[in-house]
Amino acid sequence: MAEEKTTQEEGTVFVGNKPPMSYVLAVVTQFNSGFKEVSIKARGRAISRAVDTAEIVRNKFMPNAKIKDIKIGTETLTNEEGRTTNVSSIEIILTTA
Amino acid sequence: MAEEKTTQEEGTVFVGNKPPMSYVLAVVTQFNSGFKEVSIKARGRAISRAVDTAEIVRNKFMPNAKIKDIKIGTETLTNEEGRTTNVSSIEIILTTA
Repeated sequence: MAEEKTTQEEGTVFVGNKPPMSYVLAVVTQFNSGFKEVSIKARGRAISRAVDTAEIVRNKFMPNAKIKDIKIGTETLTNEEGRTTNVSSIEIILTTA
Repeated sequence: MAEEKTTQEEGTVFVGNKPPMSYVLAVVTQFNSGFKEVSIKARGRAISRAVDTAEIVRNKFMPNAKIKDIKIGTETLTNEEGRTTNVSSIEIILTTA
């Protein structure tokens, strides 16, 4: 609206183990609240759900949303015993700009 | 996405339900056989395994391999009864060029 939010150009949705539609609604809500970009992030097995989320948003709810970028990476997690495990991550950035 | 004609420039590895290392070895083998690009494809839950495959190739076996492009999409499958379901897909293109 009239008030500027200079630092809030991009929203973020972290995808976990809920049904994809939960995250679809979160993404659509963030766009409707004024974000021009929404970043969908996930790790490990939730990665396929992040892709589902992005595809459902684009195909069913916001045909004007485009994929700006997709990044993949590896994060190293350390448990209480000091053991480390690697887990893959994804970030899908949707934009309506 | 139907099956692409494999040119001599690009190999393809389809990721399914085997352990990620099977696909890692397939990707490395294709690079070693002379391909400059290898496309890693998966659908549905195998998508996270495709990301694992790309990350393991890059981090453990071929540090010179770069991600050229990542595409996501939706494929419509039809079963014997004529019912259709949508499934997400991913294509990760690695290059050593």
